[in-house]
Amino acid sequence: MKVLVQKFGGSSVANVDRIKNVARRVVSYRAKGWKLVVVVSALGDTTDELIELAGQITSEPPAREMDMLLSTGEQISCSLLAMAIEELGYDAISFTGGQVGIVTDKTHTKAKIVDISAGRIRRALQEGKIVIVAGFQGVTQDQDITTLGRGGSDLTAVALAKAIGAKTCEIYTDVEGVYTTDPRIVPEARKLKQITYDEMLEMASLGAQVMQARSIEVAKKFDIPIHVRSSFNAAEGTLILKEADKMEDFVISGVTLNKNEAKVTVCDVPDKPGIAAKLFRELSREGINVDTIVQNVSRTGFTDVSFTVSLADLAKTKKVMEKFASKIHAGKVLEDKDIARVSIVGVGMKTHSGVAAGMFEALAQKKINIGMITTSEISISCIIRKKDAEKAVRSIHAKFGLGKQA
Amino acid sequence: MKVLVQKFGGSSVANVDRIKNVARRVVSYRAKGWKLVVVVSALGDTTDELIELAGQITSEPPAREMDMLLSTGEQISCSLLAMAIEELGYDAISFTGGQVGIVTDKTHTKAKIVDISAGRIRRALQEGKIVIVAGFQGVTQDQDITTLGRGGSDLTAVALAKAIGAKTCEIYTDVEGVYTTDPRIVPEARKLKQITYDEMLEMASLGAQVMQARSIEVAKKFDIPIHVRSSFNAAEGTLILKEADKMEDFVISGVTLNKNEAKVTVCDVPDKPGIAAKLFRELSREGINVDTIVQNVSRTGFTDVSFTVSLADLAKTKKVMEKFASKIHAGKVLEDKDIARVSIVGVGMKTHSGVAAGMFEALAQKKINIGMITTSEISISCIIRKKDAEKAVRSIHAKFGLGKQA
Repeated sequence: MKVLVQKFGGSSVANVDRIKNVARRVVSYRAKGWKLVVVVSALGDTTDELIELAGQITSEPPAREMDMLLSTGEQISCSLLAMAIEELGYDAISFTGGQVGIVTDKTHTKAKIVDISAGRIRRALQEGKIVIVAGFQGVTQDQDITTLGRGGSDLTAVALAKAIGAKTCEIYTDVEGVYTTDPRIVPEARKLKQITYDEMLEMASLGAQVMQARSIEVAKKFDIPIHVRSSFNAAEGTLILKEADKMEDFVISGVTLNKNEAKVTVCDVPDKPGIAAKLFRELSREGINVDTIVQNVSRTGFTDVSFTVSLADLAKTKKVMEKFASKIHAGKVLEDKDIARVSIVGVGMKTHSGVAAGMFEALAQKKINIGMITTSEISISCIIRKKDAEKAVRSIHAKFGLGKQA
Repeated sequence: MKVLVQKFGGSSVANVDRIKNVARRVVSYRAKGWKLVVVVSALGDTTDELIELAGQITSEPPAREMDMLLSTGEQISCSLLAMAIEELGYDAISFTGGQVGIVTDKTHTKAKIVDISAGRIRRALQEGKIVIVAGFQGVTQDQDITTLGRGGSDLTAVALAKAIGAKTCEIYTDVEGVYTTDPRIVPEARKLKQITYDEMLEMASLGAQVMQARSIEVAKKFDIPIHVRSSFNAAEGTLILKEADKMEDFVISGVTLNKNEAKVTVCDVPDKPGIAAKLFRELSREGINVDTIVQNVSRTGFTDVSFTVSLADLAKTKKVMEKFASKIHAGKVLEDKDIARVSIVGVGMKTHSGVAAGMFEALAQKKINIGMITTSEISISCIIRKKDAEKAVRSIHAKFGLGKQA
């Protein structure tokens, strides 16, 4: 069976006209002979509206009930899309996550898929129907409804592609694909034809918002090609796969920017073995993810420990660290919200030397000061002042010749 | 287990404040020692809004997809109510119709309940939880979502009361109970303390809008007392049961009014055996329900056949009848939308004579002409001009001494 999985995000189904557009696109593929499984997110801002509604009732909604509530958003959009497709004269059938056998663990609001029994989908496809599946949701063994967390609909799409052996998983979104950097900052940013799973993962974790890391990880694990493309035109987007063609042999694939981090410094920490471990254990116990860490050279038996956290976690982090600092007789806890992370990503840096030097030169040319540096096998990140962020991205993008003219 | 089923309609959960009110009422019963199963309708106008949304996509939404769409309304309200109850410090758990094992036939948009396996509810009750169930919905054997039609949440409540052996089924609504007639027409209308299933059924079918006939039929079948009462105050409402106490031995229980009918007359129908049967067979084939039927005395081998249908079916009825009239060489098909049905209902008329005469006198006193008359064992209906409707109700209500002062 020649099956294609297509996933349409919230902006692609934000209103009735857009739902009708999606229906037309879907049937155009049906007409070309594809069997189709279509995954949809909730209409536009539905999910946020439902969260707001719950917020009016309680500041701490029970996670199970939250999932019961939020899963309705996708149920609405998938039934409407099925209607729009039927209206065009094609057979369609919509399913909730539970109905197509997406079984998850019990971690409500961020459940993990443990099994998909795709029998019901296969039967519907064999009957010639276009199958529409509500994204972002599943059920536990007890039939309790769960949701998969932010970006969950992408995960539904990739997991279904694996379960039914689809050739490709198309992710339709409001951008045309994955760009070398944010085109709003660098107008000459170039759409990438291809990018590897690893590069995409790195870009996602460094601030690119095209796809959530979890679904790319699943795609990588099962080697399912993802095609990220626009739901508003027919242009080819970006293919995410195991190994990109040599043709596009740029040293780096993209420049990312993240302005949603803050730097926290715990001053005058007694410089004793095990203290750093304790400090970061405190944070992980509170569910706070720490990124770049820098510890200054110790003088006189004390040291300053700096690290970055997401802005959303800042208040909590400060509270936890102030308590910890007083316990270990350390000094003040400082925060710095005026930072930005600019990063370059590319598998090419494994085999090319001088990449880091190139990045630092690009920053130096614009007299941009570097506060912290971290590297991974295929990325380099610099923490700089927020005001320099866009200037930095443009300078690095030009330095590595990533623009359209390159 | 001392279990109470409570059902709250759309107006009772129309907004966040009302949901919180319902939560407070529910936990007040919990505090009194009841185990509770609470059935909720969709928030306020949600269902109508969803129908409108579907209408923007297609004029003929597939019934299965319509159910997928509409069932979300109750899923939202039941999860929100569960949150509101938890916020008050009580354990609650919400379920869809499917999750509590409400299995229906496949007649989407007006499915019939075929089975309820209440095991999941019983377990939750034993765990001390307040159980919230989405009204109006079930699933087929194949797990396809179905809805139970208008008034379906009442049906869910009554059927669950039967399945778990509840003592009473409380139906909370925006009126204080069942009245002798519409208090907007007759200010001195009296709230009934009790009414029999049969009377309530008759009143429902004759225009009283408190409860749908289907749920009363089920309550009657299994002898489940229903308590209709207001969700906005603590007053006792009306108890619907098998036999009302003698104390309230009024001859009739209520006066109903229905202005949603039209009269259709097929003129000059050949007066041959079997013609009437054919005529009404045509209508039933199209799913048109016919009420009062009058056939004038035949002169010269032709007769006029008149009957009433609901206004919603009028256009279709005329079309079907015009086709039929031409086939059997009958005359014109006339319509009359200017009619109203006023009825009296009461088990007392079985044992009291002169009830019909009393009704006709009440109309005659106000010089109201009677167009058609029908009777059942416990009701009498007159078709009159629409402009006389309210006057007729007031006159009859007074005649039988139904007012508060009586």
